[in-house]
Order: sequence, then structure tokens, then C-alpha cells
Amino acid sequence: MRNTFGNLFRITTWGESHGMAIGCIVDGCPAALKLSAADIQGELDKRRPGQSSVVTGRGEPDTVEILSGVFLGKTLGTPISLQIKNRDSDSSKYEYMIDKPRPGHADFTWREKFGFVDWRGGGRASARETAARVAGGAVAKKLLQGFGIEIIAYAIEIAGIRANMSTNYKNLRQIRKIIDSNPVRAPDPKKAGEMEQAILDAKSKKDSVGGVIEAVAIGVPSGLGEPVFDKLDADIAKALMSIPAVKGIEIGTGFELAKMKGSEANDPFFITGGETDKANNKKVLTKTNNCGGILGGISNGMPIIVRVAIKPTSSIETRQETVNLVDMEDTELEIIGRHDPCIVPRAVPVVEAMMALVLADHGLISGLIPRSMRQK
Amino acid sequence: MRNTFGNLFRITTWGESHGMAIGCIVDGCPAALKLSAADIQGELDKRRPGQSSVVTGRGEPDTVEILSGVFLGKTLGTPISLQIKNRDSDSSKYEYMIDKPRPGHADFTWREKFGFVDWRGGGRASARETAARVAGGAVAKKLLQGFGIEIIAYAIEIAGIRANMSTNYKNLRQIRKIIDSNPVRAPDPKKAGEMEQAILDAKSKKDSVGGVIEAVAIGVPSGLGEPVFDKLDADIAKALMSIPAVKGIEIGTGFELAKMKGSEANDPFFITGGETDKANNKKVLTKTNNCGGILGGISNGMPIIVRVAIKPTSSIETRQETVNLVDMEDTELEIIGRHDPCIVPRAVPVVEAMMALVLADHGLISGLIPRSMRQK
Amino acid sequence: MRNTFGNLFRITTWGESHGMAIGCIVDGCPAALKLSAADIQGELDKRRPGQSSVVTGRGEPDTVEILSGVFLGKTLGTPISLQIKNRDSDSSKYEYMIDKPRPGHADFTWREKFGFVDWRGGGRASARETAARVAGGAVAKKLLQGFGIEIIAYAIEIAGIRANMSTNYKNLRQIRKIIDSNPVRAPDPKKAGEMEQAILDAKSKKDSVGGVIEAVAIGVPSGLGEPVFDKLDADIAKALMSIPAVKGIEIGTGFELAKMKGSEANDPFFITGGETDKANNKKVLTKTNNCGGILGGISNGMPIIVRVAIKPTSSIETRQETVNLVDMEDTELEIIGRHDPCIVPRAVPVVEAMMALVLADHGLISGLIPRSMRQK
Amino acid sequence: MRNTFGNLFRITTWGESHGMAIGCIVDGCPAALKLSAADIQGELDKRRPGQSSVVTGRGEPDTVEILSGVFLGKTLGTPISLQIKNRDSDSSKYEYMIDKPRPGHADFTWREKFGFVDWRGGGRASARETAARVAGGAVAKKLLQGFGIEIIAYAIEIAGIRANMSTNYKNLRQIRKIIDSNPVRAPDPKKAGEMEQAILDAKSKKDSVGGVIEAVAIGVPSGLGEPVFDKLDADIAKALMSIPAVKGIEIGTGFELAKMKGSEANDPFFITGGETDKANNKKVLTKTNNCGGILGGISNGMPIIVRVAIKPTSSIETRQETVNLVDMEDTELEIIGRHDPCIVPRAVPVVEAMMALVLADHGLISGLIPRSMRQK
Repeated sequence: MRNTFGNLFRITTWGESHGMAIGCIVDGCPAALKLSAADIQGELDKRRPGQSSVVTGRGEPDTVEILSGVFLGKTLGTPISLQIKNRDSDSSKYEYMIDKPRPGHADFTWREKFGFVDWRGGGRASARETAARVAGGAVAKKLLQGFGIEIIAYAIEIAGIRANMSTNYKNLRQIRKIIDSNPVRAPDPKKAGEMEQAILDAKSKKDSVGGVIEAVAIGVPSGLGEPVFDKLDADIAKALMSIPAVKGIEIGTGFELAKMKGSEANDPFFITGGETDKANNKKVLTKTNNCGGILGGISNGMPIIVRVAIKPTSSIETRQETVNLVDMEDTELEIIGRHDPCIVPRAVPVVEAMMALVLADHGLISGLIPRSMRQK
Repeated sequence: MRNTFGNLFRITTWGESHGMAIGCIVDGCPAALKLSAADIQGELDKRRPGQSSVVTGRGEPDTVEILSGVFLGKTLGTPISLQIKNRDSDSSKYEYMIDKPRPGHADFTWREKFGFVDWRGGGRASARETAARVAGGAVAKKLLQGFGIEIIAYAIEIAGIRANMSTNYKNLRQIRKIIDSNPVRAPDPKKAGEMEQAILDAKSKKDSVGGVIEAVAIGVPSGLGEPVFDKLDADIAKALMSIPAVKGIEIGTGFELAKMKGSEANDPFFITGGETDKANNKKVLTKTNNCGGILGGISNGMPIIVRVAIKPTSSIETRQETVNLVDMEDTELEIIGRHDPCIVPRAVPVVEAMMALVLADHGLISGLIPRSMRQK
Repeated sequence: MRNTFGNLFRITTWGESHGMAIGCIVDGCPAALKLSAADIQGELDKRRPGQSSVVTGRGEPDTVEILSGVFLGKTLGTPISLQIKNRDSDSSKYEYMIDKPRPGHADFTWREKFGFVDWRGGGRASARETAARVAGGAVAKKLLQGFGIEIIAYAIEIAGIRANMSTNYKNLRQIRKIIDSNPVRAPDPKKAGEMEQAILDAKSKKDSVGGVIEAVAIGVPSGLGEPVFDKLDADIAKALMSIPAVKGIEIGTGFELAKMKGSEANDPFFITGGETDKANNKKVLTKTNNCGGILGGISNGMPIIVRVAIKPTSSIETRQETVNLVDMEDTELEIIGRHDPCIVPRAVPVVEAMMALVLADHGLISGLIPRSMRQK
Repeated sequence: MRNTFGNLFRITTWGESHGMAIGCIVDGCPAALKLSAADIQGELDKRRPGQSSVVTGRGEPDTVEILSGVFLGKTLGTPISLQIKNRDSDSSKYEYMIDKPRPGHADFTWREKFGFVDWRGGGRASARETAARVAGGAVAKKLLQGFGIEIIAYAIEIAGIRANMSTNYKNLRQIRKIIDSNPVRAPDPKKAGEMEQAILDAKSKKDSVGGVIEAVAIGVPSGLGEPVFDKLDADIAKALMSIPAVKGIEIGTGFELAKMKGSEANDPFFITGGETDKANNKKVLTKTNNCGGILGGISNGMPIIVRVAIKPTSSIETRQETVNLVDMEDTELEIIGRHDPCIVPRAVPVVEAMMALVLADHGLISGLIPRSMRQK
């Protein structure tokens, strides 16, 4: 509920954008898993502000500390408390708009819900909250690696520019190399340049752009997902829709499936392996993967593929129509301060983190992952 | 978890397609709400098989019984046990394919997960399970009506044919009249005919088609939704993605937002009311509704708008490639039996039900809905 | 929450005392477990009214039906819907006291909470609700048996008369034989007669008596229980305190421990086995079992021992002081109708059921019990 | 689950005894509640080590920091992150017994469960964990005060010495004064001296003693508690049994009720008020309070009274029999280090905290407490 996500593998996050710190408690991670701050820091660095020309200039190093749950380099099976201090916060730039809700932002609805809010930097509604998810997700990723599960996400579209990529997910290392080599985290070096330019163009016009992130999980065995309500895709949908600015989710071929015939959409099964291997090495695969690796809410052993629509950043410097909530009068607003002209690149590690959290949770629920790695 | 959905307003469903019955336990409904079997039956009739030319011929009356939780026509605040007996089930048509998983269907993954399955009519993986959701959702709808909240869903697209409709949701009664007057449940009488024809064409070719359902909730006050993980849209996404055959979710303008500029996407706020009224009757609205009534995961008082992509029915009579799971060999399959050539029309009331369940739950969590209607 | 108990192995119960039926949905039971209605009926028969001189005369056969979740004699891993029809209910005997809450009974507090209640036979506050627990618990017991875990409960004290019993729990079959041979379910044939007489004496005086039930679980391996809040004893305490009329819980030596020295209370560890066996067959046991098989909230491999205090039946025929809630005036009440003069004997199977539910749940959470018995 | 407690008002605690810090995340506290670190520090000081002759000498100031959730002295409705740094930890005194589990302690069972443990100072199994509960409970207490609910706990028995006290709970301030004036936190100044002496005697003999804590909550309105499983007393039982060293729970007259007749045990209702007041000021009370303020799992408006049995501290300096878990051989152990000879006095604020957490949670669930104090 609320600031806790997951069942057996769960995180609880806390912290306001301009408060003293933000943090994440990871509960349910099996004991005896090797884990260091460096495992987590690597993921946070991908989300960190100030890392390139297309992201906000807020100069946060986002250094993570592990305060509990790890002893002699291994997890204890107890809560792992992760903490990131806030440093470069400048609250003065928010005072002028305390009573003027930013269009497209959570300012208005938080005020309606809670009656009293932290207006500094968006408070808890700030996307800074997602750093805590990335920290928790890093633990999940480390855990999943031990079971051969890898997750990768990338910007498949920014400002309407679509990346071209081969859909052979077998060579994840190659794909990751490309993604890490460009500031927009696209899997297509050529289109990455166009995307970057589109972001800089929007920025120069005091505007912003959105995009689409695709995530792939490989190595997920069949059998993860709990019918009928806690289907694997249902839990993924909730996890991803809870990320700020996400307004759409697709599994596999997604909305395109709505226009297809059953004979086109169904993924034919076939048997693989076994020729030179023993018969019990035979495996069932599908020829296509329109279902995105999930049938009836349960993983089928194929790559899990999802896409999320990210809206353009709502905080833009262009003059906008809004209201004054004290005077209850129409007014206008020009937002100042440091905001990403496109949050897609920095949302990529957040999508990976949420995918990892769902898979780790279902790994534990299904019995794939034991309670202690000693038992493995 | 699993067969239970919701927090304070929750349902637990049970039953296999060809078992003795299916059912739904509604827990957390406030006491002293007027409720009769007729309130629920009306919703079930919209989902019932055999109601028109475009749906399966299985002749189930789907009569609901209320076994507990209601006394003298009013709810007690105790669990409401709803039960629907299974009648017209013909399991013989499933025996030939016990070891041959249907492509696009949950046959394979259920077997992988549980090792032992009820192969009769899809067992618990059958969409028949959704009748229990509709029954539970009907209770939620009745509850929400008392707070001025109405939900309506319809087929906005079938087989690639898009309905044209005015987006003025103020006249829901008019829209519902149109939807109820055509077998595909489209809000556009002209396109409804084309959609129906497309379904019948697919059926005649032993094939199937999919579509898109749009749902609108009006009268939802601002303040529903729990940051940061139990955002209203996150819970809606999970609820809808848990419906069989759903492969995509959009909130508001959805995936189109990914191509828009921030200056286009942001919904400007304005003040309404108050001229002839007292000042405290003034209200904040938005000029557009790209956000679909949800900002930062919290309702903003505007209509909530979502769309789901429904894949074409996986059970088609066309010969398909599959495998024999006992022999572990490639084989082919021609499915016989009664299946909807398009499940969109019958999924419409299921979408309404899941929306109602999420809103009733958040209504209770936020304090909008009291524990007893006596307190209201 | 509310009418649902458990995490991975969970039950949801429903039904009012004089409604159409009561029931229990068991969710999370592993697939491929052999289960029949007879497994459940045997447990229900121990709780059934009308079985002896010391229990209420309500003539309910309490026949259970399995409506879902079982196919070809084995569980499917899907919800198991268990239903018991209500037959011998006579609501007329409750009408005269609609506005006069029975002292010691839930009449007053339910009315305060819900505003509208089913006054027939106590409605959902009736102990009849526990039949559904026994039904669900029977499934848990069957599951636990496959892992060598047995649970037995008995009346250790009734009306202040304490049973003498050897505390060697190794011969559970012998203990069960004694318990099943007397109407009060005491493990001491001689004291059982005194207890029975005390109950009949109270009945003849229009009064009632209480007692203490002890429960023992043997075969529980070490490692069950989740620190820090979901300790095994914490979950047992909640489970047992939720049974109507329970007002106290003890684990192991319980309240007596409060008077002991640490040097007396601590259970010394020792090594057993291994002489003629291989070294890895050695096992750690404790010489005494003051801790009742639970240390730090986690099972230690010794028998788990708990006791619950059962208050005397609140519904007695003796004239009592109460109030009229409509007139808000003091008044008196003489309760008529069929009530147990002592509910201890019939609460025994309820205690066993709740213990079984907690252990099955923790068995799944800890990974002892797999998701499918096929995997075992 | 596990390290999270509560539903709508919930805490998640973290930290090992000799790690960097311990902490508590409070989620679900309504917005706009006045809260300062001083509110929390006052409670922690009652649990702090080194405060008197009868508690451990570990010199922890236990200073709490609020890292999130509070802005301008008021809560935000967002997670409140509370942190206490560990300072005076001396792990060297634990090394010699790494493989020798302390009798009566969680050493053995944690090792069985997790396979890998933090042996320094008991790790997470240390009672130091309860400081985080006290911190979270202090927030709950502050919240409850605004609704007229006060909780007080005290040592009613230590080492078999029972305190005499008048049971008129109306003058809580007077009772609290007595409790705060003696180191054992007893409500009887004379017996307090005897208790203190008994503790010092045990300490001098390298032994320890236990006791009984009673807690009273006044001002709780009728209607709190969720039938059938989340009864108020069931949730209290779980909350209190989850406290280290608790082995028994009683509600109201508790185990004594098992020996009483129904005619003695039932609490007669009567009407109070209304003579000089308006008729609608009339209130229903009970003449006795054997039920401890809870009927059918729901509060009845009378004081809620519970007692918990605390076993003697398991860590004693007396030589004890134990085993070596590496060699799997019997051995002996003399524990060194700083341990409370009786944990009852320091457990008193922990009992208050857990009671407060349960009542705050049920206050929110029942609708008594709103989501924002602005709405009040």
C-alpha cells in the first residue's frame, strides 16, 4: 500500500525532493546474496541528474549508503536500508508558485488530497522519488542475475522519432553497449543523434518532449505470475504506471494486436533442442512473440517485452494558463528552475528497476527464488 | 493476492469454467446499502453468452444468487457471497486437445505453473471467470452511484474500425442508450454495423478479431489515489491488465502524448462557477483532459478516461501449429467448440466492473465512502 | 483483512448464522494435493452442534460441498470453494431482543460499528462462522500431513477442573483416541467426566462455564516464522484471539514464565542422533520446552505448544441487566434459544483449524511447502 | 509482512543492533498533524538503556532524527522516516559465541532460517529493534491524542511480586506520575521497591527475572475492530506477541475468565448521562469490564485492558548448556556482555507503542481518523 511495493520482495520508499534525504527499505531479499554499495551506485548513476546535455543540471551525486541488512558483503535476509542524501536543492525557485499549480503536474491534486503539502521542488511528488526505486531495483537485479534473468530498457522513441533495432535479444550485452554510448539511451546510434537534437530544440523553445521506453526481460522461466488478479502483466502494468509521467503500457505487440486477426496474433508453439541432447532437454518455444512472453498472466519462457508511453515533461518555461488557489482566480505561470526537457533518458533505469522488482517478487512467490541463497 | 482484488473494498473470486459454479465474495462494502439480486443480474446480462449473433452460443442464463451479506434488502457490512451455477458446459469438446496447448491461450503456462490443470473449457483460465468480476463490480457500481460516480465503457474500435463519438461525457444516459442498442456495444450506430460485419466475416473464415474498449468515469471527486505506488492510474492499469486478452492500457491521451510537446500536452487550469454563486462554489477544472482525469496518480475532478487493447480471441477453428506436451513433438490443432469470434462486446461490462472496483476501493481508502451508509 | 486470513495460504469466509449458507474460499493451496469432501467433513463433524449432551441442540448436519478447485480428486492450485448450507435455524427466538444487546455478546458493538445488523441468531457474529474456519483448516491439515506436521488440541481445563496428562507428545494417536472418546474432548478420561458434570450443572442453573484449550503441533521443522512482526507466535496469537470467546493466549509455559528465573526458563540445547547414524543426521533439540517450540518468533523444531482461555458462553438463560438501545433505558433480559453451556468442546477443532492455517501459511512463506505437489 | 506492521497506519522498521543505525518508516499518518522530534524523543528516553540501576549499561543516547514526512512542524501525509544512529556497540563480546546459540535466545532459529546471520549483539533479533517501534508508536500516540485516546502501560508484576493499584483509570495523569517515579515502572510505589530489589538480587546471582505488563487505553470509542479475523483484540494480540520475550497475552480478565460462570463474566450494560443533559447525550456503559473493552472483536467504549507475560531475560551470565553448531557437539556457555537483568521496565514503552499502532490503524480503517487533519 502507498509507499510500499511488492509482496514477498518489497520496497518501501520515503523522502521529499528538498528534504534531508530520500531512501528505500528493501524487505524480503534472500539471505546470503553478495551485495555492495557499488552494485546499487552503478544503477543510480544512470538516473543521476547532470550527466549529459539533455538532462537537468541539478548537481546531485546521489551517493547511496547501505545502513542495514548487509554484513560482511552479504545480505542477512533482514531489511536493507538504502539512503541518499539530498544536496543541491534550491527551494527558492518554487516559492513564487506556491498557490499556482503547474499544469500537467501533481501540485493541484496533492493539495486537494492532503490539504498541506511540501511545495519545495515538488516535495514527494517530485520524480526525485524514483531514485529510491532505482536503488531498490538494483538489489532485485542483483538477485535475478543469480537466476539468469537480465532486464534491459531503452528509449525506443523520443519526440516521435522511432529507433530501428534488430529484435534479437540474445545479444543483450551488445544492445546495452549502444544504449550506454548515447545520452538518450536509444538502441540505435543514428536515431539517437536525432532524438538528442529534438530534445535540445524543445529546450531552446522552453518546451519539452516525450517518448516511449521499451523493456525486455530475458531468462525468465515459464510459470511466473499468479492468476487471476496478480497476473505477471497486471503487476508489471501497475509497477510501470506508478512511474511519474507514464500514461500508457503495452505488453508484446500491444495496441497493434487489437487490429490483428487471431490467426496472425497467436504465437505458434514449437519444440526446440533434443536432437543432439537428451530428450528431456527439449523445450517449448513460440515462433513469434506477440504475447510478449506472457500467456494468461503467466510467463511462457520467451522474452518479456513491454513498452511505456512517457508524456513530455510538464514543467516548462513557456507561459501557461493556471489558477491561483487562494484567490480562486485565473492566472498565468512561467516556471523557472532546472527541469529535464525530456525525462525519457532518465526514466530508462527506473523502468528497469520496476521490472526487476516485479520479477523478483514473482520469483519468490512462485518458489523459483529461495528464502536463503544458502539453500540454492 | 491471486484471487483477491482490492484493499478496503475487495473481491475474492472462485470457480472453473466447467465446475459446479463460479462465485464472488465482496468484502468491505459499507453496511446499509440497498442491494438486490436484480442490481447484479442487470450487469451479468450484458456479459452473458448467447445474447447476440456476435457472441458464443453457450446458453448460460448466468443467474446470480446472493447467499450472504444482505438482509432485508440492505447490505450488512459483512461478506456478500454471490454465486452463479454453471449449466451448459460440454467438456467433451476439450478432451482431444488435453496435451496440445492452444496458441495464444493460457493452456501451456497454467500447465507449466501448476503441473495439474482442469482442461475442461479452460478451467479457471477461462474468461468465464470474469462473470464473477462483473457480479462483484455491480455491487461497487451500486455503491458509487450513491456518491454521484458513474462508469461507462464501450467498444471504441473493433477489427481496426474506429467509432466516431462526441467526447462530451455529460450526457452519459444518451451514450449508454446507443451502446445498448447494438450488439458490439459501440457508441456510434453507423460504425457499429461495420464492426458487426467484420466480426461475422472473421467468424465465417474460422478466425477472430480484436479491438479497443474505452471507459469513462464521471463524478469522481479530486483526491482519489495513493502516492507513490498505489496511484489511481496504477491500480486501474493492474485491474484492467488482469482481464483476459488485454494487452495494452492508456490513460487519457495515452501513447499519443509521447509524440506531443509539453505545451500541447499540459491541461490548462481554469476557474468555473462562482459568478452568480457564492465564491466558495468556485471550482478548478482543466480546459483539455489529456491527463485523463489523473495527475500524479490522484484524480483531479475531471472525467477519468482509459482505453484497453483487446487481442483477437485466441481460440479459432483455423488449423494452427502447436506441440504435444507428452510426446514433446510438433503437431497441429484445429479447435472445435463455441468461442466468441470477438470478445470485445462481452469484455465491455468486465472493464466497467474492474473500474468500479478500483474506484470503490479508493473511495473507501480516501475516506470519501464511509464504513456504513448510516453515517452518511 | 477482515474476512480473509493468511498470506500465501489464505481463507476468506462468509455467511450469517441464519442466512442461506456459510462458506470458505481457500486460496493458495498447492496444486495436485489429494483432497475429498470426506477430508473436510471429518473435521466439521467434531464441531457440529447436537453431537452430545454438552452442546447445543441445533440439529445442523453441516454437510460440506466442494464447488471449485478440486478436479479428479486433486487440488488445482485454484480457489477451493467450500459451502455449508444452513438448515435448522429458528430466527423467531431472537426477535424479542432485537434492541436489547446480550451482555458479553457482540450484539452491542456490531450495532455500534455497522448501524444495521442481522439480528437472527447473532448474524455473522455467531460462532457458527467458525464452521467455515474448520472447513478451511481441514484443507490446511491435509496439506501439512504431507510434510509430517500434525496438530492436536484438547480441553485441558473446563470450569476450573484441570486435566492431568503426560506431556509426551510422541504418541499423538493415543492422545487423540482419548480425546475423541469423551464429549468434552479432554485428554484425561477421569477428569473428562468431572468436566462434563460441571457443564451439565451449569446448564441446569441456566448458567455457563469456560475453560482452557491446549494445542500442540508436532513435526514442525525449524525455520518457520518471519521476524520481526510476523513471528510465528504472533501470527498464532492473532489466529487464536480471533476465535469468538478467546480472551487469553499462552505460548509454551506462558504466564508462568513471568515468575521464573532465566536459569530456569531457558531451554538448554543438546545434540541428539548421530551415534549409529552419519554425522549429518545429528540434530539440535532442547531438554525442556518452556519456549513452546518458538524462539525469536521462529520455530526451533520442538513441539509447538499454545493454550487459549475460553470465556463462559455469554448467552445464558439467567436474567441479566441490559439496556434498550431504542429507548436508551435500562432493562432486563432473559435469553431463550439453544446455546452451548460451554463452548470449549466445540472450540477444540476450531483451535486446530486456526493453528493449521497459520502453519500452512508459514510453510509456504518459508519455502517448506512448494506451489505444486508435483514439484515435491 | 515481516518488517512492516499495520494496514492503513503502518510502520516498517530496519536495522541491526550493531549496524550503522536503526530506523522506522511511518506510512499512512494523516497530513497536517503537528509533530516534532521532541514528541518522539520523549518516548525513546523511556526505553533508552542506561537510564537506571536495573537496566543495561549500554550508553546509547538513542537520538531520533526525522528525515522526511514533516514540513514546517506538521506531517505531510507522506512517509515519516525516523532514524537512530547506533553508537555504543561493542561487538567483540559476541565473537566467542558465534557458533554457540544462547539458550532461550533467537540465535539458533535465525541461523536455521537464514543460514547467514549478523552475530554482533544479536543482529536484528536484538531487542534494540524495539526502539524503532517506540519511535513509530510515538507518532501514533500523538495522532490518537487528537481524538482523546490515551494509552498507558506499567509493570503490574515483576519476579512474582504483584503491584496493588486502584483500577480507576480516569486519573491517568496520576498513574503515569507514579510509574515515571520508579525505575521499574510499577503503578505501586511500595511494591516498586520490592521489584527493584528482586531485579538487583537476580543480577547479583548472574540470573534474570520476568514479569507482567498491563496496558490500558482510554477514550477509545465503540466501533473499532474488524470482524471476523482482524478483530481488535486479535490485532492487539499479534502486535504484543511480536515483542521479544512476550509469551502470553490476556484481554480484560483473561485466563481468570476460564474459571468463571457466564453470570459472573458477562458485563451488564447500563445507561449513563442524560439526566441534566439532552437525551442524545445518553451513553451505554458496562458495570464491570471483564471483557477488557472489546466484545466480538470490536471496542465497546470502555477502557481497553490487556496484559502480557514477559519471560526472564535469556542472556544470563550463569553457565548454561548449549551446543556447538559447527562441531555438532554439546558444550557450555557463559554469556558476557551488558544485558538487562529484567527487561520489563524497558518493555513498558514498547507495549504502549504497539498498542498505539494498532489503535491508530483501526482508527483509520474504521473512519474515525481522517486522511488529513485539515478535514477534521
